[in-house]
Amino acid sequence: MISKVKNAMSNLVGGMMPHGHHHHNHHSGGQTCGTDSLPPRFPYGRPDFLDLTPELLQYSTEHASRPVLTLKRGSRLPWQTGYAEAINAGKSMLNEDQASCEKVFVKKPSGKHRNSTLLDQNGDGTGIPLHFWGIFDGHAGSGAAIMASKLLHHLIRDRLGEICHLLENPSSAPPICLAKNGSPYQAEAKKGGAQEPEDPDAVSDASVRFYMEKVVSLESLVMGVIETAFKQMDDLIEKEKSSYAISGGCCALAAIHLMGKLYVANAGDSRAIIIRNNEVIPMTNEFTPESERQRLQYLGFLRPELLGNEFTHIEFPRRIQHSELGKKMLYRDHTMTGWAYKTIVEDDLKFPLIYGEGKKARVMATIGVTRGLGDHDLKVYNSNIYIKPFLSCVPEVKVYNMDEHKHGPDDVLVMGTDGLWDVTTDKEVADAITAYLSCCDPSDPMRYTLAAQDLLMRSRGVLKERGWRLPNDRLGSGDDITVFVIPLAGHATKHVQ
Amino acid sequence: MISKVKNAMSNLVGGMMPHGHHHHNHHSGGQTCGTDSLPPRFPYGRPDFLDLTPELLQYSTEHASRPVLTLKRGSRLPWQTGYAEAINAGKSMLNEDQASCEKVFVKKPSGKHRNSTLLDQNGDGTGIPLHFWGIFDGHAGSGAAIMASKLLHHLIRDRLGEICHLLENPSSAPPICLAKNGSPYQAEAKKGGAQEPEDPDAVSDASVRFYMEKVVSLESLVMGVIETAFKQMDDLIEKEKSSYAISGGCCALAAIHLMGKLYVANAGDSRAIIIRNNEVIPMTNEFTPESERQRLQYLGFLRPELLGNEFTHIEFPRRIQHSELGKKMLYRDHTMTGWAYKTIVEDDLKFPLIYGEGKKARVMATIGVTRGLGDHDLKVYNSNIYIKPFLSCVPEVKVYNMDEHKHGPDDVLVMGTDGLWDVTTDKEVADAITAYLSCCDPSDPMRYTLAAQDLLMRSRGVLKERGWRLPNDRLGSGDDITVFVIPLAGHATKHVQ
Repeated sequence: MISKVKNAMSNLVGGMMPHGHHHHNHHSGGQTCGTDSLPPRFPYGRPDFLDLTPELLQYSTEHASRPVLTLKRGSRLPWQTGYAEAINAGKSMLNEDQASCEKVFVKKPSGKHRNSTLLDQNGDGTGIPLHFWGIFDGHAGSGAAIMASKLLHHLIRDRLGEICHLLENPSSAPPICLAKNGSPYQAEAKKGGAQEPEDPDAVSDASVRFYMEKVVSLESLVMGVIETAFKQMDDLIEKEKSSYAISGGCCALAAIHLMGKLYVANAGDSRAIIIRNNEVIPMTNEFTPESERQRLQYLGFLRPELLGNEFTHIEFPRRIQHSELGKKMLYRDHTMTGWAYKTIVEDDLKFPLIYGEGKKARVMATIGVTRGLGDHDLKVYNSNIYIKPFLSCVPEVKVYNMDEHKHGPDDVLVMGTDGLWDVTTDKEVADAITAYLSCCDPSDPMRYTLAAQDLLMRSRGVLKERGWRLPNDRLGSGDDITVFVIPLAGHATKHVQ
Repeated sequence: MISKVKNAMSNLVGGMMPHGHHHHNHHSGGQTCGTDSLPPRFPYGRPDFLDLTPELLQYSTEHASRPVLTLKRGSRLPWQTGYAEAINAGKSMLNEDQASCEKVFVKKPSGKHRNSTLLDQNGDGTGIPLHFWGIFDGHAGSGAAIMASKLLHHLIRDRLGEICHLLENPSSAPPICLAKNGSPYQAEAKKGGAQEPEDPDAVSDASVRFYMEKVVSLESLVMGVIETAFKQMDDLIEKEKSSYAISGGCCALAAIHLMGKLYVANAGDSRAIIIRNNEVIPMTNEFTPESERQRLQYLGFLRPELLGNEFTHIEFPRRIQHSELGKKMLYRDHTMTGWAYKTIVEDDLKFPLIYGEGKKARVMATIGVTRGLGDHDLKVYNSNIYIKPFLSCVPEVKVYNMDEHKHGPDDVLVMGTDGLWDVTTDKEVADAITAYLSCCDPSDPMRYTLAAQDLLMRSRGVLKERGWRLPNDRLGSGDDITVFVIPLAGHATKHVQ
């Protein structure tokens, strides 16, 4: 075990990341290794806010004990955010989860070139405050997760900076067209073309006209900023892979608080829920081969060359054997939700693009999540078939208006990687949070970190002869686990931080 | 007005269908007209169950009075189904809505060729009873709607017949593979390949194995039958267009009751709701350029040749003017839900694939629904750009288990074309139904037809100086309106019809 850690530590120093297998079939997971000679974009480590000594960093990698790391008493994150993490049970040498929690300020871009501001901290502390929480669940290496945890919030901040003058004027809808200087551009008086004759089918609502301008809300503009920032993050990983070793890919879940609204953006299979009055409000959907089956099949159907003559876009309930040619098999294609029988032809003997059920479902027998950042070099094992075209880096963004609800001290946003949720349900998390916090001194600044630790333990369990076990003797999660518990009280617009 | 009807009636006799404009921009709607010399597949008419005399058929086309047609007292539909319809206010010469209500029997296919059985009625009355209600909202002609109303239930029945032996044995899950004679085919003992090594990341659930067989329920097999029957119906329309004049396309909404379950299949913008205890249970989603924006944009993005160099897959909130080149405009692409700014380039001056809002939203400035049957020849006005690739004929199927709920005599399924729902909300329909039925003699077999008539009147309104008006003076629907009101009580499995 010591040698394993030593090995890990020498890797840390040397900047070489071992390749993990999370979300990957053991037979595959072929990141190209030609980048081993490049330096890492960022060195391996745990989140800065944990402030680990080298000894503690080494200790954090012990798969045998899986220590739970939490915030130290005295070290404060914004909003008294609680945090806990633990490494996996051995599936990868390092903890491939990463996390970030930052308060930054949105302001107009200065004359400087954007790239040079990417790592800028908060400067003079003026601008519109933005709180950011991110968790990044890496696979096939930790490079992409680390890079995203260092940069994503800066990309979001900078893109918001470009529309800063609109954010400062939230009462008026964003202009549809902007001149180069950012001011609204008024086109000629005539509105988009000749008027069409009155339609007898028309509903008597003047807002529903054929030639119209859609009214776009400031909220959907912020959503668009977050969506495009994820894309930019993904592009940046690809671009910098020519200069740095940036291994693997990662799911990305981010919560952004801006001007009284909480934007929760999810690309992958991490999950966030709000617990209000012990009720669960889901803030994310998971993106997996099962939940995105039809999107992936549709792409395989429209662009069969992406399947490399090895895969079929049609789904079957199991592998077909050669002896079954000419028989009838249940199937469904990209258009179907139900199942029907089809006569098996030679082409159906190819491996299905989507195969497996639940946690074992895979795209091209390789990856178990369908959205995230990175993975640009990910190929099907022993082939030249790239998987990236099937993966999306775009998050689904849900908005929660903090001003519309009253929040007590036990109302929180819980963000966790799949290691948390695989063994603990939303309802169990809500009950655990409510039970734990109600017994906690409301003035203890550590209460949310202690609650996060409690949640983590419920999913990790304790090590027994037969592996990590929960109190009910079911298997605990062997995965990396990361949890934020973020209190929601006191953050309505009127109570400026 | 008389001449208009005369003209319509001579068309009826001659079998030429005028081209309507429903869901179409006035500038477009270019069905090819080369089929004018072919005979119609079915002559124009109203549903058989209305049993109209030629005089009443003529009367039904009066746009000035828009008579409400209902079932005659004494003529019974299965389940005491209530029905009402009215023609549009003049946008097309004929009523382009169609409806069907049938009880058929599912049985093993006989030796006869399927095509010869397509119009077979119930034969000897043995087999599994199936109740079918369909409404078909035609556009650009009534041919597709009429054909679908005559045949869709037969296609569903025949496809179900192919799995009749599985339906007769509902306690066992459908076999994954069938031999040619329809019996389950057992492959070799080895299950799909070598066992993979134990995954340390695995959850301790034996059902979640990589090499597995998915268990497919009988219910999802019936869903698959319905989905593929819609596809078959669409293919049949295309095929028979070489021999017959089959004008236009149609939205299709079908409710199928089989073995205690109600399957509601929707392709288009008709709507079905269940009203139970005055509560609304939505049974459909509408498929429109707005609700399917991302699917359509994705296709345009992946297959730009389908846009014919005339359209851009990117959405803008309004048309861009040439003078705005180089400025920044709000946009969203197929990946986005929010909006962002982009610099306008030459390509952005093309017309947006999706354009307009609400009832005025159109695909390629032409059609306002994105799912349905027919439309194989539909092109963008004055161009060679086909719209069919962007339309889907596959319904979304929702299942309602009749056995899981108790139904009173006022609990109903309401199915209506968009003419009904454009001016009356779900809640208003539920309140109207509940109010109307509670005042009606529960033993009156006409009560559901009277309720349907009441609903229809609420959306049509009455003709005043300023057009068709509702009691609150808002505009009534000028569209064709068709309504089924179907009582749900007494149809649980145990009470066999």
